[in-house]
Amino acid sequence: MMEFDTIAAISTPSGEGAIAIVRLSGPEAVAIADRLFRAPSAKALAEQASHTIHYGHIEDPATKETAEEVMVALMRAPKTFTREDVVEINCHGGIVSVNRVLSLALRAGARLAEPGEFTKRAFLNGRIDLSQAEAVMDLIRAKTDRAMDVALTQMEGRLSRLISSLRQALLESIAQMEVNIDYPEYDDVEEMTRPMMLEKAQWVQSEIAKLLQTSQQGKILREGLSTVIIGRPNVGKSSLLNSLVQENKAIVTEIAGTTRDIIEEYVNVRGVPLRLVDTAGIRETEDIVERIGVERSRKVLKEADLILYVLNYAEQLTEEDLLLFEAVRDMNYIVVINKTDLPQQIDLDQVKELTSDKRLVTTSLIEEEGIDQLEEAIAELFFEGEIEAGDMTYVSNVRHISLLHQAHQTISDAISAAEMDVPVDMIQIDVTRTWEILGEIIGDTADDGLLNQLFSQFCLGK
Amino acid sequence: MMEFDTIAAISTPSGEGAIAIVRLSGPEAVAIADRLFRAPSAKALAEQASHTIHYGHIEDPATKETAEEVMVALMRAPKTFTREDVVEINCHGGIVSVNRVLSLALRAGARLAEPGEFTKRAFLNGRIDLSQAEAVMDLIRAKTDRAMDVALTQMEGRLSRLISSLRQALLESIAQMEVNIDYPEYDDVEEMTRPMMLEKAQWVQSEIAKLLQTSQQGKILREGLSTVIIGRPNVGKSSLLNSLVQENKAIVTEIAGTTRDIIEEYVNVRGVPLRLVDTAGIRETEDIVERIGVERSRKVLKEADLILYVLNYAEQLTEEDLLLFEAVRDMNYIVVINKTDLPQQIDLDQVKELTSDKRLVTTSLIEEEGIDQLEEAIAELFFEGEIEAGDMTYVSNVRHISLLHQAHQTISDAISAAEMDVPVDMIQIDVTRTWEILGEIIGDTADDGLLNQLFSQFCLGK
Repeated sequence: MMEFDTIAAISTPSGEGAIAIVRLSGPEAVAIADRLFRAPSAKALAEQASHTIHYGHIEDPATKETAEEVMVALMRAPKTFTREDVVEINCHGGIVSVNRVLSLALRAGARLAEPGEFTKRAFLNGRIDLSQAEAVMDLIRAKTDRAMDVALTQMEGRLSRLISSLRQALLESIAQMEVNIDYPEYDDVEEMTRPMMLEKAQWVQSEIAKLLQTSQQGKILREGLSTVIIGRPNVGKSSLLNSLVQENKAIVTEIAGTTRDIIEEYVNVRGVPLRLVDTAGIRETEDIVERIGVERSRKVLKEADLILYVLNYAEQLTEEDLLLFEAVRDMNYIVVINKTDLPQQIDLDQVKELTSDKRLVTTSLIEEEGIDQLEEAIAELFFEGEIEAGDMTYVSNVRHISLLHQAHQTISDAISAAEMDVPVDMIQIDVTRTWEILGEIIGDTADDGLLNQLFSQFCLGK
Repeated sequence: MMEFDTIAAISTPSGEGAIAIVRLSGPEAVAIADRLFRAPSAKALAEQASHTIHYGHIEDPATKETAEEVMVALMRAPKTFTREDVVEINCHGGIVSVNRVLSLALRAGARLAEPGEFTKRAFLNGRIDLSQAEAVMDLIRAKTDRAMDVALTQMEGRLSRLISSLRQALLESIAQMEVNIDYPEYDDVEEMTRPMMLEKAQWVQSEIAKLLQTSQQGKILREGLSTVIIGRPNVGKSSLLNSLVQENKAIVTEIAGTTRDIIEEYVNVRGVPLRLVDTAGIRETEDIVERIGVERSRKVLKEADLILYVLNYAEQLTEEDLLLFEAVRDMNYIVVINKTDLPQQIDLDQVKELTSDKRLVTTSLIEEEGIDQLEEAIAELFFEGEIEAGDMTYVSNVRHISLLHQAHQTISDAISAAEMDVPVDMIQIDVTRTWEILGEIIGDTADDGLLNQLFSQFCLGK
């Protein structure tokens, strides 16, 4: 285990609540807490057993004045989140209270933790690997139950174990090839090596391909399906948005550090987190194209994973409708023909021709009809109707997906080379590279720069 | 101790953080947690010692699937916040995660706690009295260190002990008067009773008066000093605001349930929490009066505890300035003459005449001069320069202040009556009423309606 200093941070979300936690981790965690903590029994935390809870007060050592009434949780290494000594000071969940306790801890010798530093220590101390550490943050940010299950499975190490078994197979191939390189005079070794190596490499290749097949769904579960609602004014875009939000519990998150206007609204549609883009704009003006300008709206459309294109059942297609069909061509869109409660004016055959293979749903939002079919269409479009997070290993993280693509490339190169009678030591380079790339996923071959960059995206106190 | 059902709630602020807590309290807390919790040792919480922490997983009893990885804190009655069995499930601080654990706890037999219900139980089970319970919420909402100290002192029972000693004195008087009423034939009893009763009543009266003297400061510490900055355009209102915010750490809180525009900004000026009103308006347009209209701004001025009236040192007083002087007459205001870095044009004698006894500060905000003097003036205006929260019993709560005013009235009535030879049984009515009113502060004589109303103002999970 590595030797670190002792860090402290507020580990609960900021704001007013019943309880807030200041977490300390490191070799001095207990000693620093003891400089501040007074139990009615006057017994120091250092004398207490691990994994116990103690009532008492935080006292300012400088003034001897009571600073807060607290419960302190004492957890000694190694059975802790960081594998170091951990002290969690549970105080009243006010802004002043928790900051006061934190600043006393810092004055008593702790250093303010960087974002993600507790999890980074869990990784550096070998309790979890990098993909598990990343899953911790995914779990916190999960917007739906299924996204959480994917993160939980990854956190428990399923992806890590699979990657490790692939690397083990590659390592065995490499060892075999070493024998071959060291003893080139034995032809029979060469003959044995190549088919064995090829078999192992092909197995690794197919496992990586399987993982990559889950990546589109995994990424959507993790990041949400960026969704835009378009259509002429007065076709029912705003009603569609409200129906989706009302039928499903919406989670609104403000993006930290940006202006107050930019709001993400997540809607959970059959386990698919729909991230509704520019919903404020739709709600206010009912017309995204008009409001944000043609140029910007084209960009919004391009970046969307899904477009819901609303038409009016009670009107004929206009020039504008046709332009919008043009704009969304080659994109993932679903046509929603709304207002079926009114007499039909739209030419359905014409619409079907324009949409070709795209999905088409008819709704009467005013009579609450068709929403179910729309949700089914969305789920089908991205998940062929079913997401089975429980019993599958999903790849959801863009970093992992990119590394798997690279690994798939290098292992495929190795296989082609092996099939083309390229010398073994040349093949070995590609196999070794694959082994290294897969190692980056679990952090075995990751450098400091990558680690710093990854953990800095964490929230404070984790 | 009273018998209740088992309640559960999320006890950490909502949002994304490292840790979130689902708290259970009640006779079934441990049993309900055991229906969900699986430790690696397979040992049930029911078999574990009190005040211990356990690592494990939350499992959905219906599907047997892992729902979350948690640390569980087990605290058995009576040494807990509520004096009941308490289980705190520490899970990952995501929105989905914590809601999943809460809903499993509810399905396993807990009832969703009402706002303040944990604290209410602490009160009903006799661990704290009503004024202490109210202090818990004050502590969470405290905007400055001094406000927190006032709340902490009240939470630890200083106000309660003082109120109890006053009630004890009144009770002794009442007992003495009972003797007098029961044995009216003994004249010497009558003679003894009256002066003794009078002495006790006068002591109670003076103690109540002392407490009431702290109430203005206490209320400001608790609720903040609602402050408005006014002045003609371009005199430096926006710079003044920014200087106050920059020199002191600002706490911005959004008022829940209202539009996103209304923001409270607190600035800690020498321990005085300044609540800056309509700061968004000032920042944007630099002119509160113009922006919100004359009618509404008059109302804002009237409701303000403090007005900072900014004048331009480099310009003569205008008609508009004089109108503003008229508008703030009889209010608490400080005149800030800004831009002393420019050549003087303002007639200082005229300003002094207009302000009469009000404080006057000159600043050059652009050169960062004069802010210290302004802060001193603010502290002086409300605290005669010094707040001593540490060694004083402050009354800060409007409910307490109102009851103390009533108690002061009834005890004064009793004293007047005693001095005017009114029969003892008549005096006794007022003394008893005083005893009852003081009891309402600590919750001894509070009814259910009051309790429900009070605790419903708490945050969820407390």
